[in-house]
Amino acid sequence: MTNKVTFFRNQIDEKLSEVMKGSQPETLFEPPRYVISLGGKRLRPILTLMAVDLFGKEVETAVNAALGIEIFHNFSLLHDDLMDNADVRRGSATVHKKWNANTAILSGDAMVIEAYKYVAKVPEKYLAKVLELFSDTAMDICIGQQYDMDFEQRCDVTEAEYIEMILNKTAVLTGCSLKMGAILADADERDAEALYQFGLNLGLAFQLKDDLLDVYGDPKCFGKKIGGDIISNKKTYLLIKALKNSDPVQRKELDRWLTAEHFDKEEKVEAVKKIYDELKLKVISENLIEKYYLASLDCLSSVNVPDDRKKELIELSENLMYRDR
Amino acid sequence: MTNKVTFFRNQIDEKLSEVMKGSQPETLFEPPRYVISLGGKRLRPILTLMAVDLFGKEVETAVNAALGIEIFHNFSLLHDDLMDNADVRRGSATVHKKWNANTAILSGDAMVIEAYKYVAKVPEKYLAKVLELFSDTAMDICIGQQYDMDFEQRCDVTEAEYIEMILNKTAVLTGCSLKMGAILADADERDAEALYQFGLNLGLAFQLKDDLLDVYGDPKCFGKKIGGDIISNKKTYLLIKALKNSDPVQRKELDRWLTAEHFDKEEKVEAVKKIYDELKLKVISENLIEKYYLASLDCLSSVNVPDDRKKELIELSENLMYRDR
Repeated sequence: MTNKVTFFRNQIDEKLSEVMKGSQPETLFEPPRYVISLGGKRLRPILTLMAVDLFGKEVETAVNAALGIEIFHNFSLLHDDLMDNADVRRGSATVHKKWNANTAILSGDAMVIEAYKYVAKVPEKYLAKVLELFSDTAMDICIGQQYDMDFEQRCDVTEAEYIEMILNKTAVLTGCSLKMGAILADADERDAEALYQFGLNLGLAFQLKDDLLDVYGDPKCFGKKIGGDIISNKKTYLLIKALKNSDPVQRKELDRWLTAEHFDKEEKVEAVKKIYDELKLKVISENLIEKYYLASLDCLSSVNVPDDRKKELIELSENLMYRDR
Repeated sequence: MTNKVTFFRNQIDEKLSEVMKGSQPETLFEPPRYVISLGGKRLRPILTLMAVDLFGKEVETAVNAALGIEIFHNFSLLHDDLMDNADVRRGSATVHKKWNANTAILSGDAMVIEAYKYVAKVPEKYLAKVLELFSDTAMDICIGQQYDMDFEQRCDVTEAEYIEMILNKTAVLTGCSLKMGAILADADERDAEALYQFGLNLGLAFQLKDDLLDVYGDPKCFGKKIGGDIISNKKTYLLIKALKNSDPVQRKELDRWLTAEHFDKEEKVEAVKKIYDELKLKVISENLIEKYYLASLDCLSSVNVPDDRKKELIELSENLMYRDR
């Protein structure tokens, strides 16, 4: 990571540690502080600040909006984990496990409102525009999560539907983070839109990389158990592609594992991974990631600022693509 | 109801029927439309329009903000019903019963965002102020719901704590509705604040009246079963007062019903109501309602507009106080 990314990250982390601090009652505000304290890459708020910096402006005006985006992101993880009944997030117990479902619901609601409060702190002349972008994005994320849940009941999800889902659930927020920075840096409409598209493509590549790491990540680096998506039958790009490309024998084997109620987890991961290997899904997936990554760089290159200003965004994107966790 | 109230109500109902219409996927947007379609008094958006009208301004600019408030109110009912595990709302199945818990969580989240989208439609010069009021109120409502849930675990809730809870959970939204109208009517700060206080006091009286009707309402008019709060041990004003004012014999009887796991519902309602009767809680409660009602009228009278403009707000308040459902 460059010095600038580290600097922005520290700034974000420092301010995040102040969010909802001292708010009462503890029963409502401790869970949000807990979720936020679990960390993560802080990718989205860093992108907002980097977008401001890209246009040579001071990042200060954008810090609160960046925090609002990160609070909203953490809210969506909190409610998604509850809906997915996930036990662990970033190595720690999820809120509904550590406390209970009602706490997860209400604390999440409070986080949405807190996110809006932070976003609303932007200078007044940007407020209407920033708010519209934020609300549209937030609604897209709900739509994406709904598609994700709807897909659980279906075995005929197409690749296009899957891409549409992760576009809504994940990619719009990286797009929004960057465009928010562009707006607050007084970038022109065309540049703001190009940065948004850069973020969408980067977000798609990022999520596909996540799916891939879940199966092909190095267990020593990955930070969580390999194969979680396989165990839970999650409709990832790999599974959707496997269902489509498999021959009758492979398909029968896949269906057997997808419907098995009692199974050895490691055995299931090995068996499904073997089919993925036979179908060369690792390289197929890597090619798609590369496609979106290159598309994202195309969008970035069309932004009307000198190339040397873009170096840090390109380096950050590269790190995201070639990460092993 | 006056012609004006009916006119505002029709306007609100017509616009509410358009909310989220045609939005996809159905799995996400049908539940919010269902909740909104169940009706209700539409008290809050009507109050917003009446506040604008009080200052002699056109209500048109405030309609979207009023809708945002009503959408938020319906969101809070949706999530509260899930957290309280309530089966019925306004005579129909609650969302988590008609669909499931995940649908209730995510549809509710989408409603919060939709509420913000409507509120954000106010003319730009009012946006920052309106948004601050709305977010502060929304957070207060979460805090109120948290207190309400925390009170379930306690038998030592004081009257002051109860009033603080309903102030947050209910009264701030009637206050916000009125103040929102005042802001959008360019009322001066002092008048906007007086209307807010009018709304707080009216909201407190309104909620206390709700508690009272649950026990002493006419079953023919009330619309839901009498005694629901007693059956579920809800910490209402009546129960809190009964726990405090009861003699040892009454307290023992109360405790027996509060801890009973298997009981005949009607028998429990009768027995607890008998204690309420002995403690004269109906009249004690009516006196408190009257106190807040009179305080609300005091606040309204201090608003700097001719008295004859206030007639409709006073009539609406009276109707709320002397209602039987």
